[in-house]
Amino acid sequence: MSGRLPFEEQLLSGQLRPSAEEREYIAGVARRLLDAINASGKATGMVVGSIARNTWVKGDRDLDVFLLFSPEMPREALETEGLALARSIARAFTPMFHEKYAEHPYINANVEGIDVDLVPCYNVASAEHIQSAVDRTPFHTRYITDKINGLTDDVLLLKQFAKAGGIYGSDQMTEGFSGYLCELLVLHYGGFAPLLAAAAEWRPPVIIDIGKHAAKKFDEPLVVIDPVDPRRNVAAAVSLDRMAEFVELARGYRDAPSEEFFRIRKEYPCCPADLAALLASRGTSLYAVTFATPPFIEEIVVPQLKRSTGAISDLLDRSGFAVHHAHYRMGPGRCMLLFELIIDELPPIRRHEGPPVWNRVNAEKFREKYRTSPLPGPFIENGRYVTEVPREFTRAGDLISSPAILSVGTGRHVRESLGKDWCVLEGADCWQEEFSGFIATFFSRRSPLVRIERDRPGRE
Amino acid sequence: MSGRLPFEEQLLSGQLRPSAEEREYIAGVARRLLDAINASGKATGMVVGSIARNTWVKGDRDLDVFLLFSPEMPREALETEGLALARSIARAFTPMFHEKYAEHPYINANVEGIDVDLVPCYNVASAEHIQSAVDRTPFHTRYITDKINGLTDDVLLLKQFAKAGGIYGSDQMTEGFSGYLCELLVLHYGGFAPLLAAAAEWRPPVIIDIGKHAAKKFDEPLVVIDPVDPRRNVAAAVSLDRMAEFVELARGYRDAPSEEFFRIRKEYPCCPADLAALLASRGTSLYAVTFATPPFIEEIVVPQLKRSTGAISDLLDRSGFAVHHAHYRMGPGRCMLLFELIIDELPPIRRHEGPPVWNRVNAEKFREKYRTSPLPGPFIENGRYVTEVPREFTRAGDLISSPAILSVGTGRHVRESLGKDWCVLEGADCWQEEFSGFIATFFSRRSPLVRIERDRPGRE
Repeated sequence: MSGRLPFEEQLLSGQLRPSAEEREYIAGVARRLLDAINASGKATGMVVGSIARNTWVKGDRDLDVFLLFSPEMPREALETEGLALARSIARAFTPMFHEKYAEHPYINANVEGIDVDLVPCYNVASAEHIQSAVDRTPFHTRYITDKINGLTDDVLLLKQFAKAGGIYGSDQMTEGFSGYLCELLVLHYGGFAPLLAAAAEWRPPVIIDIGKHAAKKFDEPLVVIDPVDPRRNVAAAVSLDRMAEFVELARGYRDAPSEEFFRIRKEYPCCPADLAALLASRGTSLYAVTFATPPFIEEIVVPQLKRSTGAISDLLDRSGFAVHHAHYRMGPGRCMLLFELIIDELPPIRRHEGPPVWNRVNAEKFREKYRTSPLPGPFIENGRYVTEVPREFTRAGDLISSPAILSVGTGRHVRESLGKDWCVLEGADCWQEEFSGFIATFFSRRSPLVRIERDRPGRE
Repeated sequence: MSGRLPFEEQLLSGQLRPSAEEREYIAGVARRLLDAINASGKATGMVVGSIARNTWVKGDRDLDVFLLFSPEMPREALETEGLALARSIARAFTPMFHEKYAEHPYINANVEGIDVDLVPCYNVASAEHIQSAVDRTPFHTRYITDKINGLTDDVLLLKQFAKAGGIYGSDQMTEGFSGYLCELLVLHYGGFAPLLAAAAEWRPPVIIDIGKHAAKKFDEPLVVIDPVDPRRNVAAAVSLDRMAEFVELARGYRDAPSEEFFRIRKEYPCCPADLAALLASRGTSLYAVTFATPPFIEEIVVPQLKRSTGAISDLLDRSGFAVHHAHYRMGPGRCMLLFELIIDELPPIRRHEGPPVWNRVNAEKFREKYRTSPLPGPFIENGRYVTEVPREFTRAGDLISSPAILSVGTGRHVRESLGKDWCVLEGADCWQEEFSGFIATFFSRRSPLVRIERDRPGRE
């Protein structure tokens, strides 16, 4: 690829391109797995994912091997026989394997140090005939493998760029760019540099239709129509904010390219004393709600954590406790919802709006109900009855600790887990070893580009 | 009038209808003033207002005498010669008189215990030819005098009912029902009782066009087209809330008529200890802004006080100090703007929203400006840059005491007076002898009907 910067070239050769040994090693493992599958006579083996496409970053150890079954086979048979074959293949190579479940069950195994997914699917004739998402994957691999020649380095740069920017991954926590999306973007724009040049000027909605075959309208801010499926947006997971972060990173990199854009930053934990000092200087109030992590995968739990955090924030705001910032984290043992508040205490009275006076029946009910109250009101404001009433919760902590938070929209698994065991922490007591990195990140929000710029003291 | 309740009849005979002696006494004074005017040969005298119409409440001592000049006379001559004649008439009767000013200058005199206004105006042939509002008054008097026969008691009841309800008067402080409006409403509905029956079901906009000649569209909630001027809404001063209060009073009176609806309540002052106890129990914060009353009439100053109170409340709300209730009072010496707050103190940081990331020029300016700040941010939220900044005012009192309140829309005279001398009081220190009644009222907001119902222990 022409126009590569010297440090990009160094990055590729030193850090991103898998070595010849690594390629051979993984290819060897893959070959033996495929042979075993094909020898079974029940399915055809196929390597998919970044290893098949030659777009994996050095050191990645994720090998996706699909077991392609005849589409004649009924779905139930595929689930049982497919899984049985995957299990027997895995068993032949390693004792370290277990069943996992996404849209369908599959086997995850550690084979000679490589993290292998053995995934049964249908071997359909064309992408129009796929029966579920996994059936589509082989088509992605064939599409990219056909076209990616000469651009694999660009894909490696983009993946590392996105990882370092914290926007790589279509999982619910990241809401960012999948590997396949990175490949399609590089293909569409013809390389890493031209992609960044274009992205610097993106303004949503951005619609990229490589196959010129979009078969429906999409609402997401970034739309990249799947070249193998006109009804699918490959960028559906990309949130508006991850898209904006990619745009600012593209601008920042073009203005002042540097290795910093490829350096993955660790989450630095904070200690309890840091947190106490921080809260004292910020003058805000902090509350954490923690509970046992529901026994489901991240893709199920994280959206519920997000919804719960939003719903509890709304409840706090509605109750007068203005939320400054709220976020969530799913840990292996427990989950934490964290709320930083501007307002922690309120007077014991509040306004309560009633009906318009013109609405006679309701107006008279309202007046009748409140007219003997010891508080001021009812009075008339803007044509409505208004009165003062005692405030139910004068402290945010009392509201968060009350059963009221169980009745906001938290999602089923979160509600069940909250219902069993739920702990409210306040102030510096929110600090928990398990969440020390999360808490540090919570209080140092910066966009990826700002983070990179601040790490580069020359520009300050 | 048929259907009068016994206590209404008692009220009329005992309290509202002027006695024969009172009538004769006032008629005598009026006669002598008219004679003097007519004898001057320069103008024709005419008694207008409620005394001319026989609709004044016993004890009222306001006699309006108009000096009708030829419409040929130029405006300037009317102002000088008209005022000179009014002054010489007044001087012939009393040494106690002085010039006043509404739309035009006039003379106010105390003649034998009666408060007399001597008002020069043009004697135009028909209401279409009036040159200013005062020229219209004689037409109102002729219109009502012609038609009010048999309904004067109803007008007296309505006026007293409106006074006791706190909704009588078209002045800026009351925003209620003028005497002329009361007369027209009684005329239109055919009496006090049928008016209340109708008003109980009012729902704005209510449009009453007695002359069936409305010549424009009106936006006010209550529209009563002036029968002598199709382009004028006699109820223009009536605010939505005064209208709603009349509606609730009408309903309440029809449900349970009693003398209480005609009893004028005094404003009971509070003492400093009351205020301190009240604030402690309410848990709110109180601030008063006081300044010398601008040397202008109520009709000029009060709207500016209202605007100032609204503008300062908006500033407080925008700055995070939620206002629970705000009001104003124009005293003879000083004015007071009073603010009761839900939030008095805020953390030293706040969110600051920047431009959308897509707006490249502004987005980069914003990021550049804030990226080295010690506070968190800039980060991206909903596609926009957001950052934390230090909060300018962490205490409401600091904001109210700052010059910021001079730059909100306060109205010219208020701003000038504030600029010269302006005092901010806090908490129980807001108590001032001059405003003790105002402060008591501020903390006991109730609609007129609720006030009446609470005074009637039988129903509690």
